[in-house]
Amino acid sequence: MTPSFPPLREELRGIEPYGAPQLSLEQAPVQLNVNENPYGPSAEAAADIARAVGEAAVSLNRYPDREFVELRARLAAYLCSSGGAGITPDMVWAANGSNEVMLQLLQAFGGPGRVALSFAPTYSMYPEYARDTHTTWETGHRAEDFSLDLDAARRLVEDRRPAVVLLPSPNNPTGTALPPEAVAMLCEAAASYEPGGIVVVDEAYGEFRRAGTPSALELLGEHRNLVVTRTMSKAFALAGARLGYLAADPAICDAIRVVRLPYHLSAVTQATALAALRHATELLGRVDDLRVERDATVVWLREQGLDVAESDANFVLFGRFADRHAVWQGLLDRGVLIRETGPDGWLRVSVGTGDEMAAFRQALTDVIKEQG
Amino acid sequence: MTPSFPPLREELRGIEPYGAPQLSLEQAPVQLNVNENPYGPSAEAAADIARAVGEAAVSLNRYPDREFVELRARLAAYLCSSGGAGITPDMVWAANGSNEVMLQLLQAFGGPGRVALSFAPTYSMYPEYARDTHTTWETGHRAEDFSLDLDAARRLVEDRRPAVVLLPSPNNPTGTALPPEAVAMLCEAAASYEPGGIVVVDEAYGEFRRAGTPSALELLGEHRNLVVTRTMSKAFALAGARLGYLAADPAICDAIRVVRLPYHLSAVTQATALAALRHATELLGRVDDLRVERDATVVWLREQGLDVAESDANFVLFGRFADRHAVWQGLLDRGVLIRETGPDGWLRVSVGTGDEMAAFRQALTDVIKEQG
Repeated sequence: MTPSFPPLREELRGIEPYGAPQLSLEQAPVQLNVNENPYGPSAEAAADIARAVGEAAVSLNRYPDREFVELRARLAAYLCSSGGAGITPDMVWAANGSNEVMLQLLQAFGGPGRVALSFAPTYSMYPEYARDTHTTWETGHRAEDFSLDLDAARRLVEDRRPAVVLLPSPNNPTGTALPPEAVAMLCEAAASYEPGGIVVVDEAYGEFRRAGTPSALELLGEHRNLVVTRTMSKAFALAGARLGYLAADPAICDAIRVVRLPYHLSAVTQATALAALRHATELLGRVDDLRVERDATVVWLREQGLDVAESDANFVLFGRFADRHAVWQGLLDRGVLIRETGPDGWLRVSVGTGDEMAAFRQALTDVIKEQG
Repeated sequence: MTPSFPPLREELRGIEPYGAPQLSLEQAPVQLNVNENPYGPSAEAAADIARAVGEAAVSLNRYPDREFVELRARLAAYLCSSGGAGITPDMVWAANGSNEVMLQLLQAFGGPGRVALSFAPTYSMYPEYARDTHTTWETGHRAEDFSLDLDAARRLVEDRRPAVVLLPSPNNPTGTALPPEAVAMLCEAAASYEPGGIVVVDEAYGEFRRAGTPSALELLGEHRNLVVTRTMSKAFALAGARLGYLAADPAICDAIRVVRLPYHLSAVTQATALAALRHATELLGRVDDLRVERDATVVWLREQGLDVAESDANFVLFGRFADRHAVWQGLLDRGVLIRETGPDGWLRVSVGTGDEMAAFRQALTDVIKEQG
């Protein structure tokens, strides 16, 4: 055997696997780093999930429904009630987390010789999906306030002719939602060349958008190259269950079936997601509380004289710090784990419970005082 | 929008998604087509799975353990008792089905400019994994009796210098197990060039091997480029839970972490697999019955004057038929669904319960009589 063992692809050698530090509750009692929903399912919802899985378990020797027909129907119904209208089951696709949805989209529509384009700052996993599908990764840039310069963005799409445009909205890590006219304009731009590109609006945090901020779901009828992705991880408080999904033209869903791994969604995952959807009212009930807490966090951070990005998500980007790592470490020393991400000088805090946000405010006050 | 909508990659256009027909029990009461285990988990095992998922469900708002530490430890312990020895948790990796394991291996070690090699007839999904990772797919050929000509196989590896050699053993769809000397020789051949290849022995059906057939797990200590994959779908009767795994050098497991999607194994999947492993004795208890049924099926088919491949798996390849589709259809007309796969003229039947195999024998007798 040669010294090059293991014979990993050259471009992957020496790369650290993606992922935020996973610390125990002993190490960091207040975990505000990965935009989790702080409220777990109720005992009733958990029991219903267990009951549903128990029913599925007796036939686990059989492969799951490869087309997850019932789940697609339930997700379609939910989307119709959450900013969409007229979304039918054949317009819905799901996978093990939004990240598998994104991977499948890039496998089907990206790949060698094709470009995926986003506007920085943008979600830090996208370039990894592009790398792992051998899609050329390119980024334009957002304005100083993290909004999109529409004319510049359109020109970039027309010039680079991407196969996939990735638009997180609300954006991660900035929290910024895109106006519908931006999505519409970029869909048109991506349809203006051969063979055309798809525009993926990643609404992982869509349910947390402020009143008056529309969902891109509303535009689905007008742009057949538009894909809107969602997840049950955030608003549904189901990060541990790994269920991401999308709504798009049925032809796009059908195309993904060519590259999806057969039986990619387990019977257990399907049962869990279906049970959670039956408890949607409860699980989504905390979203309003979190939106209030989010808005209060923005106000408080501004009162401290900090720069704070507008947020339609369940997190807030704030700064700027000459030494953000020192602030991050100072918070962690006080038991509060947030995320060192985004443009230099900024930090991101997930919105937790009222108690957790009080702990965050106290810790940040101390750290700022200490570090002058 | 142009007529090329959706803008799928050229090589994917017009391709039908992979998958055996999924028929209802009304359409086909005897389902012997996808090598499922006919015995579901007991009520006790199903209840324990439900209990484990119920416990996990209360914290589903949190992301799962990205490194699935406990599951890796339990899988390692199981492998030590199933043909392996000295397999440690850092030598184990798992994903949503063996097919995600294979995809990850090809993402890490295959890709553009690299070759994946197998010997036909071989598992029909492999070329799709290669296509979806842009790995060049090449096949050598097995002998008439589906065994491997070792010298020819070694020469092909040395000549084509594959990054990944895929060796299903027992082979799907033929049921043929590879002797250890074949695996050892190909591991050496794949280590003889730069940067070297990995040799993946796909033991999805490993637990069904006949007495005296060794597992490639025994060779792990001697060949660091050897990867042995397993699944809980077959022997553990857990196809619906989607849990595939592998054992290999820790450096190989670590390399996969670069391309795995973060949190790819849900907390629900981890809890389900851990509960099933606690019931390993029960779940694996039916394997011996199925091996007896398999051997009896081979004997009976030979008594009918048919060609039958030696099988170390839970299925049997038999033939040859001038019109295999007519035989397949004749069986389905009698409620018995088997698989039209493998070399022309052959059919594959999964080993079911005693009653199911009696139904299969009766139906095949009728079909052969009818079709002369």
